[in-house]
Amino acid sequence: MIGPATYFRPEHRAGLDDRTRTLIDRREAVLSPGYRLFYAHPLEFVRGSGTSLYTRDGTEYLDAYNNVPSVGHAHPRVTAAIAEQAAQLNTHTRYLHEGLIDYAELLLGSFDDTLDTLTLVCTGSEANDLALRVAKHATGNRGVIVTENAYHGVTTEIAAISPSLGGIDSLAEWVRTVRPPVGDGTEMVADARAAIAALQAAGHGVAAFIVDTAFASDGFIAPSPETATALAEVARLVRAAGGVIIADEVQPGFGRLGRRAGAPGLWGYRHHDMTPDLVTIGKPMANGFPVAGLVARRELMQQFGEHVRYFNTFAGTPVSVAAARATWEVLHDEQLPEHAATVGDELRGMLVELAARHDRVHAVRGAGLYLGVDIVDPATGEPDSAAAVSLVGALRERRILISASGRDNAALKVRPPLPFSRADAERLTTELDGALSDLA
Amino acid sequence: MIGPATYFRPEHRAGLDDRTRTLIDRREAVLSPGYRLFYAHPLEFVRGSGTSLYTRDGTEYLDAYNNVPSVGHAHPRVTAAIAEQAAQLNTHTRYLHEGLIDYAELLLGSFDDTLDTLTLVCTGSEANDLALRVAKHATGNRGVIVTENAYHGVTTEIAAISPSLGGIDSLAEWVRTVRPPVGDGTEMVADARAAIAALQAAGHGVAAFIVDTAFASDGFIAPSPETATALAEVARLVRAAGGVIIADEVQPGFGRLGRRAGAPGLWGYRHHDMTPDLVTIGKPMANGFPVAGLVARRELMQQFGEHVRYFNTFAGTPVSVAAARATWEVLHDEQLPEHAATVGDELRGMLVELAARHDRVHAVRGAGLYLGVDIVDPATGEPDSAAAVSLVGALRERRILISASGRDNAALKVRPPLPFSRADAERLTTELDGALSDLA
Repeated sequence: MIGPATYFRPEHRAGLDDRTRTLIDRREAVLSPGYRLFYAHPLEFVRGSGTSLYTRDGTEYLDAYNNVPSVGHAHPRVTAAIAEQAAQLNTHTRYLHEGLIDYAELLLGSFDDTLDTLTLVCTGSEANDLALRVAKHATGNRGVIVTENAYHGVTTEIAAISPSLGGIDSLAEWVRTVRPPVGDGTEMVADARAAIAALQAAGHGVAAFIVDTAFASDGFIAPSPETATALAEVARLVRAAGGVIIADEVQPGFGRLGRRAGAPGLWGYRHHDMTPDLVTIGKPMANGFPVAGLVARRELMQQFGEHVRYFNTFAGTPVSVAAARATWEVLHDEQLPEHAATVGDELRGMLVELAARHDRVHAVRGAGLYLGVDIVDPATGEPDSAAAVSLVGALRERRILISASGRDNAALKVRPPLPFSRADAERLTTELDGALSDLA
Repeated sequence: MIGPATYFRPEHRAGLDDRTRTLIDRREAVLSPGYRLFYAHPLEFVRGSGTSLYTRDGTEYLDAYNNVPSVGHAHPRVTAAIAEQAAQLNTHTRYLHEGLIDYAELLLGSFDDTLDTLTLVCTGSEANDLALRVAKHATGNRGVIVTENAYHGVTTEIAAISPSLGGIDSLAEWVRTVRPPVGDGTEMVADARAAIAALQAAGHGVAAFIVDTAFASDGFIAPSPETATALAEVARLVRAAGGVIIADEVQPGFGRLGRRAGAPGLWGYRHHDMTPDLVTIGKPMANGFPVAGLVARRELMQQFGEHVRYFNTFAGTPVSVAAARATWEVLHDEQLPEHAATVGDELRGMLVELAARHDRVHAVRGAGLYLGVDIVDPATGEPDSAAAVSLVGALRERRILISASGRDNAALKVRPPLPFSRADAERLTTELDGALSDLA
């Protein structure tokens, strides 16, 4: 997802102020070496509000990166809901609690009628892990098809279907990849035919095709008639082979791709006109409280529930549901999915205008408030990861938080909290303009 | 863990009041059929405090079952810490945040010096999943040894090492089981020798021995010189075969087994005089906020961190750390581990006295505030699951919450929030006395 060069490395240490250096030393002494910090000069935030994050000295940064605090940092309604419920009760789902039922009814109302059964978990990884367990159980097959640079999470099972983590060699032997639906999508369909044939030949069969409907780690492919046609054909082939379709909405879900009058709603799969069998949701679901879920066709869960014992201690508790419910209400009351469509269009327009003036900017992709800006070497037109990483660092110095992503780590990733305003979009564009000019 | 008969089943529906029936109907319409409710007559709680839970009409129940709200239901200090931090900031571990570092230092201070490296995750399942990934990576082996009725969690990988979920047939082919350290522990050691030989013969090698140090699902085996000797010998054999030792402290950790002056502290492994390579922690860690962790020897995480990308979005966030920190402070300020030792002894004494008067009570096992009470058929002396389940239901009618557990589902499980008082212990014992008399 994020290329290594946007992280702090030991050689950056010399340039740091004393406090930052001390915090990093203390942190490295107690946390696993796997922990990473963003930026050559890491940031310490102590307060957040809306799309702003603040350091200890009160310096404000515009957050154009974080999708988890989706309705805005430290939203007072979400905070109040958590505090109120935590003061009352926090047990588990083996006692009755009306809050859980109310929320499940509300949430399922936003899905297709066939997607009528909810299981709550704590993380997107747990959601995808459970979705695969259900798919394998229901189909009796083992094979899984993913896009070629997919990321679906970090459990043992899910890391083994996530080529973006460790490349093709890190995948389990029952995983095959397909190219994402670029162009007319015929490559993806051809790859799916080959993947199905290979999984069947190896004796694995086809359990599932799982797809991030924003294609985030494959490079932000916006929904279009072509993606719809390609995904429909892949789904037909997978189902004909006995498999099911899993839409991973952990990143695109809850309105990130924008909602327009009379057009598809909160979920990325609807933008592609898909009809998945299982949908996983997470990150922005409770504005940072660990809540995720699996929405499924009932018959799949019926079979699974009868044969497999699954209980998730921390999932669906009164406090976690209160956080999710408050986030849901803010999302709707503040019309943030509609706002994401409007301001996303405005931001995209500004970036396209920027691209016309900077030959390092090749294309602007994505939908709503999930955009990728392709950075290229102007001499060759090839993706330029070094330049993208350099721009991320330059924007940090200009108090703007974004990141680099995509297969070549050469796309700027713009994925702000949804209350991102037109003024925020203008500020981002102005600073990116300056950073591009400095780089040239 | 919990036998099916302590759950609500459709045939219980007729006897319910209207509200309970309506809630169950609504719940079943939206949640996965895998969700279960405790009791033939499920309970709806709306408030909790200390060791008490309250229904809508204000009826109070004594909670002698729930270990997650370990410092007491809705503890005001934990609630305040969550509310205060949520109002300020909740981001992730790729920015610096001093609260995370402070907490990690505090927590690691309670472990052996060699266990010096923390990774935070959201659930015990994620902790055990990560521990196995690290063990397999570090050893290059695949084989895992567990106790014969072990429960370690619900991810795909961890369900495959948890015989309590689906029996021996549900285990992966690279898993072998050993009997728990009962008696002089020689059975466990012999089983471990056989398991190691079998895993090596099958080409899996030995990656890890993972053990719940309370042996909760294997029947609450209290620490003793015999368990220490057996576990030390198993550890020696596993290490000689190239494997590592994982202590699963998700249930016994954070003082549940009691702490005495000059004796082992918060962790079950210390009671057994073990020296594990990896320790997983969870459930009571943040009094119900989804926080769990992996504590490890640094060299294991160094190797893993260099080769494997692992980032857990919701783990180690400022709010989750604030919840964990406040829980830690309450645990120590209120001296709950010491209290667990004292009141646990008192409760055990009361139950032993009860056993002397009821021939259905065979033995009282466990340590601190984690006790098992074996229920037998007085005619045969055999474990009597039906009687245990009946007692759980009878105690619910007497407003006491416990459960049944163990391999035969014939042990009453007593595992209350740690502020459980002597008066609470007397109330539990009196009501159990009455329920036993009614049953006879």
